[in-house]
Amino acid sequence: MKAARYHGPGDIRVEQVSEPDVAKGQVKIKVRLCGSDLHAFLTVTSIFPTVDEPNFLTKEKLPITLGHEFSGTVVEVGEGVDKNKFPANQSVCAEPLLSCRTASCSECADGSRNICPHANSLGIAGWGGGLSEYISVDQDLVHVLPPNIPLDVGACIEPLSVAWYAVKRSGFKAGDSTLVLGSGPASIIFLQPIRALGASWIGVSEPSPLRRQLASKHGASALFDPLSPGVDILQSILDATSGRGVDIAFDCAGVQAALDTALVSLKPRGVLMGIALWEGKPVLDANLILFRELTYTGIISYDRVHPEVIQAVASGKLGSFEDIITSKIAIEDVVEKGFKALIEEKDRQIKVLVHP
Amino acid sequence: MKAARYHGPGDIRVEQVSEPDVAKGQVKIKVRLCGSDLHAFLTVTSIFPTVDEPNFLTKEKLPITLGHEFSGTVVEVGEGVDKNKFPANQSVCAEPLLSCRTASCSECADGSRNICPHANSLGIAGWGGGLSEYISVDQDLVHVLPPNIPLDVGACIEPLSVAWYAVKRSGFKAGDSTLVLGSGPASIIFLQPIRALGASWIGVSEPSPLRRQLASKHGASALFDPLSPGVDILQSILDATSGRGVDIAFDCAGVQAALDTALVSLKPRGVLMGIALWEGKPVLDANLILFRELTYTGIISYDRVHPEVIQAVASGKLGSFEDIITSKIAIEDVVEKGFKALIEEKDRQIKVLVHP
Repeated sequence: MKAARYHGPGDIRVEQVSEPDVAKGQVKIKVRLCGSDLHAFLTVTSIFPTVDEPNFLTKEKLPITLGHEFSGTVVEVGEGVDKNKFPANQSVCAEPLLSCRTASCSECADGSRNICPHANSLGIAGWGGGLSEYISVDQDLVHVLPPNIPLDVGACIEPLSVAWYAVKRSGFKAGDSTLVLGSGPASIIFLQPIRALGASWIGVSEPSPLRRQLASKHGASALFDPLSPGVDILQSILDATSGRGVDIAFDCAGVQAALDTALVSLKPRGVLMGIALWEGKPVLDANLILFRELTYTGIISYDRVHPEVIQAVASGKLGSFEDIITSKIAIEDVVEKGFKALIEEKDRQIKVLVHP
Repeated sequence: MKAARYHGPGDIRVEQVSEPDVAKGQVKIKVRLCGSDLHAFLTVTSIFPTVDEPNFLTKEKLPITLGHEFSGTVVEVGEGVDKNKFPANQSVCAEPLLSCRTASCSECADGSRNICPHANSLGIAGWGGGLSEYISVDQDLVHVLPPNIPLDVGACIEPLSVAWYAVKRSGFKAGDSTLVLGSGPASIIFLQPIRALGASWIGVSEPSPLRRQLASKHGASALFDPLSPGVDILQSILDATSGRGVDIAFDCAGVQAALDTALVSLKPRGVLMGIALWEGKPVLDANLILFRELTYTGIISYDRVHPEVIQAVASGKLGSFEDIITSKIAIEDVVEKGFKALIEEKDRQIKVLVHP
């Protein structure tokens, strides 16, 4: 079968690989759509194995098959899997979270597998990925999609779960004012749970005009271009929040300027929730954390939120992806029309889905 | 009367100033003992007014009278103050927190005066200080000391309140493991609430041998010299916490190495509570905050904890200061035997009290 494989930074090749078997407890999925997430492998390469060093969990070295945001249909189930839950052709999405699951791991034992010291993802650490025709996944990582969730929305449950989880972990409550600092598709996806859960005000700082336009459609109360020299984001935020600052800022950018803006924009005892991974290490105005009693925290992946996200999408609270999915391409085109387009056509592409 | 006055960084002079009047709603206190806290005016000079720029609240320029950790006895009360609560010679301590108290300040309106944008302290911003013979203080900042709290312990209620408040705000609960990163008297004082509230393990990283020795007496489970090249603090912490890391780290140092140690020593979802002010801005391993879902927060001063701290001291849970108060000196000696001794005799001095 065809698979988009990662050989190293910037080196992605569509190659023939053998179709996976379905082991005991697994569900074999025909992948229908998979997001081509870029951020991770262009910038934070440390989460991948290398050609010499295998991943701790999967024991795989490069190349590995990419893709961790995918939906598909059930082809076959392994021994011990309930066929009534996963009948042939059932639409499903995957929760691609891998962790050590050893008895000595307190995090896995508590169920918080995303903070296991070895936590990683299908499509990054190995064990196949969504950018291939088929993948076999452990049954507890497969979620049934209700009939009213189409497969393209199903492929976006993964990034939506990151956003939902981050909003929940931030302590957000209905009526809170928020600032979203963006530089990629994540910031637009973030607006959905923030709006669904009842934000009173949503400021969005985003350099891309297309994304600002989309943010406006998706519920932003105010839009800022952080690259425009005449823009006083802080003053606008203070004006919008009776001089206090926002309750919660979401850092979907992972750059120094966004961190600086977020910290000064928060009200006393406000929360900065970090989502974007960093290429380098930022400088922190630590006295600001003290003087305003701010909280800087962050999340990685998600911790058991897929069922509630799927329910929220099924009920119509979340899941508006028509204008976020900007193209659907064949796997053969994943490099040129997928990864390269996302980098070079930032003003035209938000989420590119691949149908393998 | 005599007063120790701050003319600028490193320039403290004992001078004659006029005795304060007692205004409506104020209590005039004869200061008995006052701590000579150093950290603030040697390193974070921005909290003081200057010779040209008055403080926003007090409208005073330099020089100002120093001292914000003091106890004393009531001399006289102003109009509207209950003489039964504050009879002559009543032992009291002061909560030196100043804030704007304007109707438009959400923080003051909520009662969280320590995070008012203009929050500051008696003895730093003006309105007199504890390093003088007398001071008049608004009655709501004066707390009655029960008969079993001596005046020298009363002078330590202020730093103890900072510690108590920080421990509470950190989300600490009985059974938590902790790491205290110290470089001054604050770290020793921190051990009291941590121990009183039921820590399961207390690691202390402290460069001064005297303070390490004292930390041992005050309940530290393990001691580390961060300047010793052979010491593997992280490994010791992992050994002591079943490989997980500590629940909460208290940064009483405010230096890069302590921040770095604190972050790697925390268990997933652990909390770093910042107390020490910073001279510069540290570099932060922000990905660690994400991957381990850490929380970095901080406090400034305290928010309405004095009554419970005084009660805890009166009941014997806190307030062991015999070996922490290393000398008591006359106000004439405050520069040589107070500030200079604290800097030059780090291995002999912890808390120097001044009796004006």
